Amino acid sequence: VNVSEIGEFGLIDLISKTLGQPPPARSELILGIGDDAAAWQGDSLIQLGTVDSLVQDVHFSFPGTSWEDLGWKALAISLSDIAAMGGEPKYALVALSLPGTTDVADVISLYRGMAALAGRFDVAVSGGNISRAPIVVITTTVLGSTGSMLRRSAAVPGERVAVTGHLGAAAAGLGALAIGIKLDDETANQLKEAFMRPCPRVAEGRLLLELGVKTAIDISDGLVADLTHICEASQVGARIDVDQVPVHPAARAAFGDKALTLALAGGEDYELLFTAPAAAMARVKAAASCPVTVIGSITAGAGPVDPVDGRGRPVSLNKKGWAHF
Amino acid sequence: VNVSEIGEFGLIDLISKTLGQPPPARSELILGIGDDAAAWQGDSLIQLGTVDSLVQDVHFSFPGTSWEDLGWKALAISLSDIAAMGGEPKYALVALSLPGTTDVADVISLYRGMAALAGRFDVAVSGGNISRAPIVVITTTVLGSTGSMLRRSAAVPGERVAVTGHLGAAAAGLGALAIGIKLDDETANQLKEAFMRPCPRVAEGRLLLELGVKTAIDISDGLVADLTHICEASQVGARIDVDQVPVHPAARAAFGDKALTLALAGGEDYELLFTAPAAAMARVKAAASCPVTVIGSITAGAGPVDPVDGRGRPVSLNKKGWAHF
Repeated sequence: VNVSEIGEFGLIDLISKTLGQPPPARSELILGIGDDAAAWQGDSLIQLGTVDSLVQDVHFSFPGTSWEDLGWKALAISLSDIAAMGGEPKYALVALSLPGTTDVADVISLYRGMAALAGRFDVAVSGGNISRAPIVVITTTVLGSTGSMLRRSAAVPGERVAVTGHLGAAAAGLGALAIGIKLDDETANQLKEAFMRPCPRVAEGRLLLELGVKTAIDISDGLVADLTHICEASQVGARIDVDQVPVHPAARAAFGDKALTLALAGGEDYELLFTAPAAAMARVKAAASCPVTVIGSITAGAGPVDPVDGRGRPVSLNKKGWAHF
Repeated sequence: VNVSEIGEFGLIDLISKTLGQPPPARSELILGIGDDAAAWQGDSLIQLGTVDSLVQDVHFSFPGTSWEDLGWKALAISLSDIAAMGGEPKYALVALSLPGTTDVADVISLYRGMAALAGRFDVAVSGGNISRAPIVVITTTVLGSTGSMLRRSAAVPGERVAVTGHLGAAAAGLGALAIGIKLDDETANQLKEAFMRPCPRVAEGRLLLELGVKTAIDISDGLVADLTHICEASQVGARIDVDQVPVHPAARAAFGDKALTLALAGGEDYELLFTAPAAAMARVKAAASCPVTVIGSITAGAGPVDPVDGRGRPVSLNKKGWAHF
């Protein structure tokens, strides 16, 4: 059965059933799907709102993409923005554009993938919109709140620069899909998982805030590009030791020495990149349940990011990050 | 100059300049465009969130659409959802997907049209996302708040059914564009304006709430279809006298007797459709600064909408509303 056959309202009914009841933690929700707008009881914390889109044949393609993974990723990339602010994500609104010929079962899979991730973070998918379109476009708005927040603009010279987790696996996953290289099953699965099922660092963002960190961004464009965003917003420079960058082991297994470039410039890792004074950084490293690796420091002067190797020699990069156009 | 040439970040800079400073009424805004998420100080009112998309070659086409009108309309359709809840719209997040070959000047026109409407309602366009795509898709999230709200589900048998303004002009405008009929300039302009520059009934929604109205929806799918949404949500029926439906004079000038069908089923009018006891309805008619026309009443039993003529004879409709697929 395709979407045209059951129509918009039939599809909305099925989606509501797939999403199920909102999580008990979202008891402030007053109206979910089914009125002109979603409604929830407000609070006097800082409110956060972010939106992101995934576009067919730009960010993913069929065949080769599971609809369930797609739903997960569409929500993950917006949750990651809330994580990068140190916020608690609470509500999602999903605008889905798709051809009328789309199989209803695929749409349900999409929302099942989204619901799986939403459930992990007590996020209520509480509204949205469905439109006909010649291609699939999924736009996810996530709303959250926080007592204080991580910004891009608070980095100070002398602070350490660090990242959570490992980098380069998402870009390696995309690259492996694109060029179809032969990989052992475990490496292939890890890379695909990294590319299609990133796990937003929500708990880690909250932890950074608690431990006194002020500056963070999520790595969506690539390490160097996103560190450049911090430098521009904070009017500082940064020096990173590329030998310290935690390249994902599966990316290294697949691409060898080229994996470093993927880690520096590949994007879509959705790890957190943050800056902190040495003392706060030590607290974070001790408390975090994921790897935290110091890769450099913030420097004076609104310079660009300055990558060097372990002996302080400049390193040149071919590609600074994901170009959206 | 096209979008690929200046790139995502060059474009975001220009868009920020086009949007200018947030309105003074939005002093709760802490972070606008330029971080991972927008941030504002919360309050303990009911919070409202809604999202809508406009898709190229489904909701509009080039040539034939002005980019400035498109920006206006993309925001208007989401503001209208907040209006239908009786809310005060406050923040907008805009996800724009477009080809890299798009002229930068066109994108600026789009945001200029959006800013013009945002300014009227003290809405801060405070964030968004830009993606490459083979077609233009604009997805607008609007957030607002309110002390209490209008719902679809509160209609009660015996209440009067009324609409603001006049109906059918947007569908007539679309029809006139599609079939290229000859119209005098004034009629043509009125219809085009109705289709591309709907003015969301925000003040009217607030007024309805103040005067004790409980049930409303905005007319996006069409009068009969949207009244059916109210009936389904409230588990009631409705009877409307089609002779009382306020057909837009320009729609009548262009399409004669067929204008009634456009008014009943055309959609995209973005007027408010609401129900209220006779006493509250009288207060609304006395206080509203726009026309308010009673067109029928709510009946017992979860029946479909029952259109009759002035003498109570059943009227059959060919088309119940805008079908999204």
